Amino acid sequence: MGNFFGKRMHALRRRLREAGVEALVVTHPPNWFYLTGFAGEAGALVFARHSAALITDGRFAVQAQSEVRGASVIGCSGSLLERAGGWLRGKRVRRAGFDPSRLTVGQFRVLRKAAGAHIHWKAVPGAIERLRAVKDVSEIAAMRATARLGSEVMGSAIRMLRPGMRESEVAAEIEYQMRKRGASGPAFETIVASGSRSALPHARPTSKPLRKNELVVLDLGAILRGYCCDLTRTVFLGRAPIRLKRWYRAVQEAQAAGIEAARAGASCGDVDAAARGVLAGYGLEKHFVHSTGHGLGLEVHEEPRLARGQKDELRAGHVVTIEPGVYFEGLGGIRVEDDVAVHEDSNEVLTRIPRDLIEL
Amino acid sequence: MGNFFGKRMHALRRRLREAGVEALVVTHPPNWFYLTGFAGEAGALVFARHSAALITDGRFAVQAQSEVRGASVIGCSGSLLERAGGWLRGKRVRRAGFDPSRLTVGQFRVLRKAAGAHIHWKAVPGAIERLRAVKDVSEIAAMRATARLGSEVMGSAIRMLRPGMRESEVAAEIEYQMRKRGASGPAFETIVASGSRSALPHARPTSKPLRKNELVVLDLGAILRGYCCDLTRTVFLGRAPIRLKRWYRAVQEAQAAGIEAARAGASCGDVDAAARGVLAGYGLEKHFVHSTGHGLGLEVHEEPRLARGQKDELRAGHVVTIEPGVYFEGLGGIRVEDDVAVHEDSNEVLTRIPRDLIEL
Repeated sequence: MGNFFGKRMHALRRRLREAGVEALVVTHPPNWFYLTGFAGEAGALVFARHSAALITDGRFAVQAQSEVRGASVIGCSGSLLERAGGWLRGKRVRRAGFDPSRLTVGQFRVLRKAAGAHIHWKAVPGAIERLRAVKDVSEIAAMRATARLGSEVMGSAIRMLRPGMRESEVAAEIEYQMRKRGASGPAFETIVASGSRSALPHARPTSKPLRKNELVVLDLGAILRGYCCDLTRTVFLGRAPIRLKRWYRAVQEAQAAGIEAARAGASCGDVDAAARGVLAGYGLEKHFVHSTGHGLGLEVHEEPRLARGQKDELRAGHVVTIEPGVYFEGLGGIRVEDDVAVHEDSNEVLTRIPRDLIEL
Repeated sequence: MGNFFGKRMHALRRRLREAGVEALVVTHPPNWFYLTGFAGEAGALVFARHSAALITDGRFAVQAQSEVRGASVIGCSGSLLERAGGWLRGKRVRRAGFDPSRLTVGQFRVLRKAAGAHIHWKAVPGAIERLRAVKDVSEIAAMRATARLGSEVMGSAIRMLRPGMRESEVAAEIEYQMRKRGASGPAFETIVASGSRSALPHARPTSKPLRKNELVVLDLGAILRGYCCDLTRTVFLGRAPIRLKRWYRAVQEAQAAGIEAARAGASCGDVDAAARGVLAGYGLEKHFVHSTGHGLGLEVHEEPRLARGQKDELRAGHVVTIEPGVYFEGLGGIRVEDDVAVHEDSNEVLTRIPRDLIEL
């Protein structure tokens, strides 16, 4: 792993040179984990051309000593950002970068004051996030493992569904199965949406019981060794009516088209258009109210975004969700979602579980 | 409940007058939940002298319409903070407040630009957090319910412990029991720390199995209807040695002294000193490496802080944890934690479960 961290740091240093800064202050936990391996919750990484330091408090100092690669560890009992500013001042850094979306106004004031008046600050947004979007082989392996875990949990959740169970009970069982299989927890609040509630793409589980002849949307994600999966299946509790089967087929075909289109060199907007076009062919375009997918990795929403008109190109190493759906207010919704890794000349569906309509 | 929201808004308006601003931009979810009842994840509340608006995106617009009290709801497809700035400009606000610890540098730029050059911005930190620290009767009732739930989960967790179970399995069972009892989830990553790992106050559960003749620290919190509980018990898997029993007695007496001292009118530092003094009497002061407790409510760490030298006074309506502990590197740790509501002339331990050493 040490080798991977070294490569990531090397790539970041190149970006910082391009951005015209000598150093970057990193305060977002997935970003410092990506660069150093530190999994603690409190920290500030100061990253310069020839050195780096991970500053943390007493609670995480022992953990940091054992985890951090490529940076020295500084234990600190006061403000971490004040210490970070002092470190930059000590290194005589003249031009430092920061990410305006990762520092609060208050943190930036403390940092600037401690770093002194000689430093020129430049906004360098999303530098590490852009590196993180392209996964290396160790990360693809980690994403395979979390996707496998998520697929097993989905399988056991589907086998467990019965009319009378409450949405919240199903969610509890799902998250329990994740933990039993070694996940550190859910990547987001598990969605179990039944009946007309399945028409809400972001429904929280309620105490509503599942009933016969209802749709149930299960959307779950687990975190395993830091990496997220995200998958959705839609189940019908009974024999599905013809109209519903047609909607399901439309979504399934749209998803297959999206997966087929998710290849190195395609634009993100083209992948979205591939899925959207199939639904338009069924006259269902206006019921597809969100975008086709998003990148995932250390966070459940990362770059790239597979949305209408996105010009960014997919590259080998991107891992994205493909998740078209259709929603009918008052009636219900259908969504199917898998995780796809983009390779040089192929792609790989990481989540492994049948996609046909399940009638229970 | 409408009445409680009205009172909270009234109190905030008084604070804003004292701070010399006509409006406040609120971006922290527990803060807008406290003021309006909106439980969605994306939003910006703009709060002025005679009106308020909750701005949210399409995913949460329906939910906001049904939940929000005392503010109009604005659905918005672009930047929420740009819309918030436009709202302030439309209301001709001249002096607006913001919390520097709740807005990123990037968000503040967008907000300022949209609000226009005529507005003077003033940092008003922690105004809502200070109101939230003092719970009203509806909140005390909610805290009782979540504490009862947490106590039941702790009881069932203790009954379940067996040598051979992994820490991560115990944590999974605990979080499952929370959900089964109606919690929306854990308030923090459940701590199950066994053997020498119990000497780490913030240990994450690992795949380590519990063994005979080991200490196990269980520290858990659940969220029920938005409100958090937080409690800790320490178990010995076998017959505890004399030395360990003495340490346990010291912690238990320190905790009792802390609870006794947690009364309206006492300073937070005095409560800390009451617990710390008992441990000093046992010669264990240097093994108590953290503070005695913290406020809790919509978040698991709130004001006030029960730490050395804190001058703030406890008031009726404060809800705090009392959680002294002792830690011996390489050997293990002991911590006992309960949640205490401060009333006018008394206090109330919300968590109900025996505190004696449990030998299994």
